[in-house]
Amino acid sequence: MIANTPEPPYYAVIFSSLRTEEIEGYAEMADLMVQLASKQEGFIGVESARNELGITVSYWKDLESIKKWKQQSDHLIAQNKGRTEWYKHYKTRIAKVERDYEFKK
Amino acid sequence: MIANTPEPPYYAVIFSSLRTEEIEGYAEMADLMVQLASKQEGFIGVESARNELGITVSYWKDLESIKKWKQQSDHLIAQNKGRTEWYKHYKTRIAKVERDYEFKK
Repeated sequence: MIANTPEPPYYAVIFSSLRTEEIEGYAEMADLMVQLASKQEGFIGVESARNELGITVSYWKDLESIKKWKQQSDHLIAQNKGRTEWYKHYKTRIAKVERDYEFKK
Repeated sequence: MIANTPEPPYYAVIFSSLRTEEIEGYAEMADLMVQLASKQEGFIGVESARNELGITVSYWKDLESIKKWKQQSDHLIAQNKGRTEWYKHYKTRIAKVERDYEFKK
């Protein structure tokens, strides 16, 4: 569940969102996008949680991989549906992970 | 709910966690830590969501602010309780936000 990421540096895309009342097709599309993303070159892993606010963090090898995923054709369709139907507000932040540390029982 | 962050660059601390069955004191401490963090110099905002996995992203002006918050005395106590009682696994990633974009209906 916690993504297994390599030694930094690598990149994180933090996607924070508030949804509309419209739910038709959302869950299926979200699942499909995770499946598709995980096949992209440079994809490392993804973590997701939602209450009222949703946060999805995907991890990538480099900026080039993120750029290609942003422009992938099925993902462009999903982004468009997201804006017209599913999201009332979202913010995407692209960040370079410089350090990490972990605790495991 | 979505943090109001300035123009990049700024920093994100991505805290991903899986909890134990122990819940005593957790919610109060989590609330207190958000209150305390928001009083620290360099704090910008925080976003949080949890299902099985919890993700909290706090935003900071610079690395120095993050370092000071990590070493703040009440926060050290909370970190210790987190390791002994509340978390079975967590990972903290410190990342420099280089770009962001936003959509709002």
